[in-house]
Amino acid sequence: MADAPTHAVVRDDALEQYLDRTAGRRLEAYKDLLRIPSISGIPAHAPDCRAAAEFVAADLRAAGMGHVDVSETGGHPVVYADWLHAAGKPTVLVYAHYDVQPVDPVELWDSPPFEPVVKQGRMLARGSSDDKAHVQMHARAIEALLATRHSLPVNLKVIVEGEEESSSVHLDAWLEANRERLAADFAVISDTSFFEGNLPAITIALRGLVYFQLDLTGSRLDLHSGVYGGAVDNPANALCQIVAALKGPDGRVKVPGFYDDVAELTALDRQAFAALPLDLEAYREGIGVPALFGEPGFSVLEQLGARPTLDVNGIWGGFEGEGPKTIIPAHAHAKISCRLVANQDPERIFGLVADYIAQVAPESIRYSIQRLGDGRPSLMPIDHPATQAAARAIESTFGVAPLYTREGGSVPVCASFESILGLSAVLLGFAPADGQFHAPNEWMWISNFETGIRTIARYWDEVAGLEHK
Amino acid sequence: MADAPTHAVVRDDALEQYLDRTAGRRLEAYKDLLRIPSISGIPAHAPDCRAAAEFVAADLRAAGMGHVDVSETGGHPVVYADWLHAAGKPTVLVYAHYDVQPVDPVELWDSPPFEPVVKQGRMLARGSSDDKAHVQMHARAIEALLATRHSLPVNLKVIVEGEEESSSVHLDAWLEANRERLAADFAVISDTSFFEGNLPAITIALRGLVYFQLDLTGSRLDLHSGVYGGAVDNPANALCQIVAALKGPDGRVKVPGFYDDVAELTALDRQAFAALPLDLEAYREGIGVPALFGEPGFSVLEQLGARPTLDVNGIWGGFEGEGPKTIIPAHAHAKISCRLVANQDPERIFGLVADYIAQVAPESIRYSIQRLGDGRPSLMPIDHPATQAAARAIESTFGVAPLYTREGGSVPVCASFESILGLSAVLLGFAPADGQFHAPNEWMWISNFETGIRTIARYWDEVAGLEHK
Repeated sequence: MADAPTHAVVRDDALEQYLDRTAGRRLEAYKDLLRIPSISGIPAHAPDCRAAAEFVAADLRAAGMGHVDVSETGGHPVVYADWLHAAGKPTVLVYAHYDVQPVDPVELWDSPPFEPVVKQGRMLARGSSDDKAHVQMHARAIEALLATRHSLPVNLKVIVEGEEESSSVHLDAWLEANRERLAADFAVISDTSFFEGNLPAITIALRGLVYFQLDLTGSRLDLHSGVYGGAVDNPANALCQIVAALKGPDGRVKVPGFYDDVAELTALDRQAFAALPLDLEAYREGIGVPALFGEPGFSVLEQLGARPTLDVNGIWGGFEGEGPKTIIPAHAHAKISCRLVANQDPERIFGLVADYIAQVAPESIRYSIQRLGDGRPSLMPIDHPATQAAARAIESTFGVAPLYTREGGSVPVCASFESILGLSAVLLGFAPADGQFHAPNEWMWISNFETGIRTIARYWDEVAGLEHK
Repeated sequence: MADAPTHAVVRDDALEQYLDRTAGRRLEAYKDLLRIPSISGIPAHAPDCRAAAEFVAADLRAAGMGHVDVSETGGHPVVYADWLHAAGKPTVLVYAHYDVQPVDPVELWDSPPFEPVVKQGRMLARGSSDDKAHVQMHARAIEALLATRHSLPVNLKVIVEGEEESSSVHLDAWLEANRERLAADFAVISDTSFFEGNLPAITIALRGLVYFQLDLTGSRLDLHSGVYGGAVDNPANALCQIVAALKGPDGRVKVPGFYDDVAELTALDRQAFAALPLDLEAYREGIGVPALFGEPGFSVLEQLGARPTLDVNGIWGGFEGEGPKTIIPAHAHAKISCRLVANQDPERIFGLVADYIAQVAPESIRYSIQRLGDGRPSLMPIDHPATQAAARAIESTFGVAPLYTREGGSVPVCASFESILGLSAVLLGFAPADGQFHAPNEWMWISNFETGIRTIARYWDEVAGLEHK
């Protein structure tokens, strides 16, 4: 599986001492960034987003990075900085974001969201874990390395985005426009969390997406179901037939070819899944369903992380009011999406689904399909050298080998890095699984923050030891 | 098939002359009733409903009926009147209603809805066909018979309801309370229309109904479809599976036992259906569907009149807004109804459907069923003596044998007469098929009104000649 490191990474005492010495100052810098209410989704906070970008730029410059640039995107700026003096060593593109989610309902916060406070080992503030902790951790690791060694073990290009919480609307164009400047060997995206129970984990896969709306039209107007029922097809019934044809009661998608490109789980993958602790009964109870449900032959975590799905996200047609209304609806609609896994191609999957709908849709109904978005799945195998380097860095700092997790959702920047920049990404994040990102009372373990900085520094040493392609 | 009449009914010249002589006065009485805005569904019109009831009561009294009673119901009153002096002859319960639909959108009327006007042989006003024409026609036939013969050929009990357009909310209780007073051999309900092209027709069947709402619940709250999709059942998908299980893509209901009690079509029934002219392409085009659709082995009119159905009347769950939202809905709902035909029992059909849903619903979802209403189907066979008597009365007045039609919808009073009073009903109505009931510019052919009065008088003579059970 893992490549053996080409040199043994040893503990850097000078670095450790530097980090120990600067802990207080570091916590203040972290708080200073958290005080900026850089909510990207609220237009009134645009100046705050810019202030956060300037803060990050100044911070990276002070840490010793070069070519620092608050780069315009048409929206909130992207901060770029690099250090490219590790001749013959790999170049890594690091990603984090300085923007945060809105804070409503603000009355549910125990302390004001932009007045960071440390309590019982936790930093409490909006953005404390998602994602300003990671912005700070990278800056502090760089600072410590440059302060103590006057060099980095690898070449780093850092970008810190300001629209991650607003669908990264301007990022793809900016990546396209900066393709050359961003050339690297691989990427590190720091915007993920550990496993439940604060177990160190590396996220190795994200699911992709195909999202579409299916619109069925029957009669010109709603019809009286007594007068017409039996001689006219009903778009709501037809919609149900189509949806039922797409996925069976066993949870398998029935679209021919749908599973063709799905990466089969290796023995190593299944072992990694089996290593993840999950109390199924507590999980079921937490969701509130009478029973869990999914594709046969896969564990719950495999179903969530390594298998594609098809779900109705919304359905509507006809009368929704109180009581009876005896109509045959003129039209019926469903929003439907498939979560995809490596190596499914959203374009191909959409084509297969659309072809199958064409096959099963009755001729007595007109229909159309609107695409509402898609995203590529991604997978960075467990045995990839960059993954294993991260595992070693985590184990040597946290004292425990990481778990390998997969996220059921997508991280759009990951797909953009792959499709625009051709870069695979290691997802190296240190947030607590229950950090209440996007919710009131967001928090971060100070210990994860501190150990994470040491992990990142160690990681660059590990990466430096990899065979440079 | 039809029983031969036991005596030959001959033309009554005195009656004809009386009707010819009183045509002008009759039209004025019809207009006077139409001027009363007796909209039962709008509380402000309650005094108008009462005024209409008083008008009808006075009119029946003037025509020579006895025991005239404006009977309280808790809502708008029912007018009762009888004439019971035809010893040894059948007793018939006659039904019509004096209330009307609202008139909105009133700006689409060519003339004010409660200012009746005759144009090109048509009476234009709200209620002109539905159903004040029939109220007047019965009164005028009675008046003419009593004026010229001083007796009626049969015993008549007339009830004129005031809440037909408001779901007859108080009628069932009133029928229960008046069961003895309403005892009869059969009923005549005059609230139906001729076939397209003003072809005389007798409605021999009405469909019944079972209406329910199916509510599915999955998780406590909507779930992120990326985070949970694949390990949790989706109530909207499950709803589609259940609905698809209920009716096949061929239009056959798949609930076991659903068709067990359906009255099979006789050769006479199929002949009657075949006699009804229907331009299928114009019908399809009028509805606006790409193709007609229905249970194999039956013509469109048979599907509509003689076969049961199952239709989704409304469906909803999850996100209905613009764009994508990646959720697994916490719940999903459908309103579903079955149109029933003789001899299906709503109670039994609901039981079969509920049992089948219990069988096909997945265990990973909770569901409940609410009943939202039902109604019994009815069928008065073509070869029933009372039907054939009506056919002879129509042929001798309109000069053409009636068609036999079935209505896809229900006439609740018909079901109430059967279940509460134990009376089968002949549906004898004379409205034009395209009379714009419930819509702006409702109208009635004056010629149908006039010939209808003569048909009704003739009908009582025909009924008098039937063997009295």
